[in-house]
Amino acid sequence: MSEQFQLHPQLAKDSIWLADWPLCQLRLINDTNYPWFILVPRRVNIKEVIDLTEEDQTSLWQESAKLSRLIRVKYNPEKLNVAALGNIVPQLHLHVIGRFIEDAAWPAPIWGKVAPQPYTKQQLSVLQQDWSAAES
Amino acid sequence: MSEQFQLHPQLAKDSIWLADWPLCQLRLINDTNYPWFILVPRRVNIKEVIDLTEEDQTSLWQESAKLSRLIRVKYNPEKLNVAALGNIVPQLHLHVIGRFIEDAAWPAPIWGKVAPQPYTKQQLSVLQQDWSAAES
Repeated sequence: MSEQFQLHPQLAKDSIWLADWPLCQLRLINDTNYPWFILVPRRVNIKEVIDLTEEDQTSLWQESAKLSRLIRVKYNPEKLNVAALGNIVPQLHLHVIGRFIEDAAWPAPIWGKVAPQPYTKQQLSVLQQDWSAAES
Repeated sequence: MSEQFQLHPQLAKDSIWLADWPLCQLRLINDTNYPWFILVPRRVNIKEVIDLTEEDQTSLWQESAKLSRLIRVKYNPEKLNVAALGNIVPQLHLHVIGRFIEDAAWPAPIWGKVAPQPYTKQQLSVLQQDWSAAES
């Protein structure tokens, strides 16, 4: 029996499901400091982008571009940050973040800068409804 | 007259030219703490990956994959970090870095962690020769 995709428990803890796109789960990091999203390919035992098939790599970058465009339209950030790091959580996940000159970490990268400020349930509900309307 | 590509002076200061690939300049960040490379698309006035044409985006990710595979073969890192940040230097550049459990910043992202440790001229000469041999 082939292994099934399972989200890494740390990613499950830090983020909220928004949508299933053709390759990836689109998830929101639960931190109001930044509009911070991750794309998690629904594949098993993949640590690096280059471990995906070529077809899946193409899909990942298409979904990254789509997410980038949506963040730009919805938030109008000063800059987008796009990053596959994974030094702590080895399951491949791509960060796509809207950055602002007045945000909590600017101009530094956001990781480890300030404590996350969780969304309220109501804020999450609005965001989930909004993002589920973005076509896959 | 159309504008010509010019490398941002901060990138010129921090890194050394290794090769011209079809889309990007491949450059080495002058810091022996990590095998740290950047890909700079030879395009004018581009801040974000999604500002490149679709064809150029495809080239960028192909060159990123090629660079990732070369870093893996040459250095055998624990993890690859791939990131387009650009909060300080707005000219689009993609970082591709080999990370090790014993490196100076592990498991944190590398930016701003420790002072760069420049290569010697001899080390740079060896690296330039080695990387110029990698086919574009």
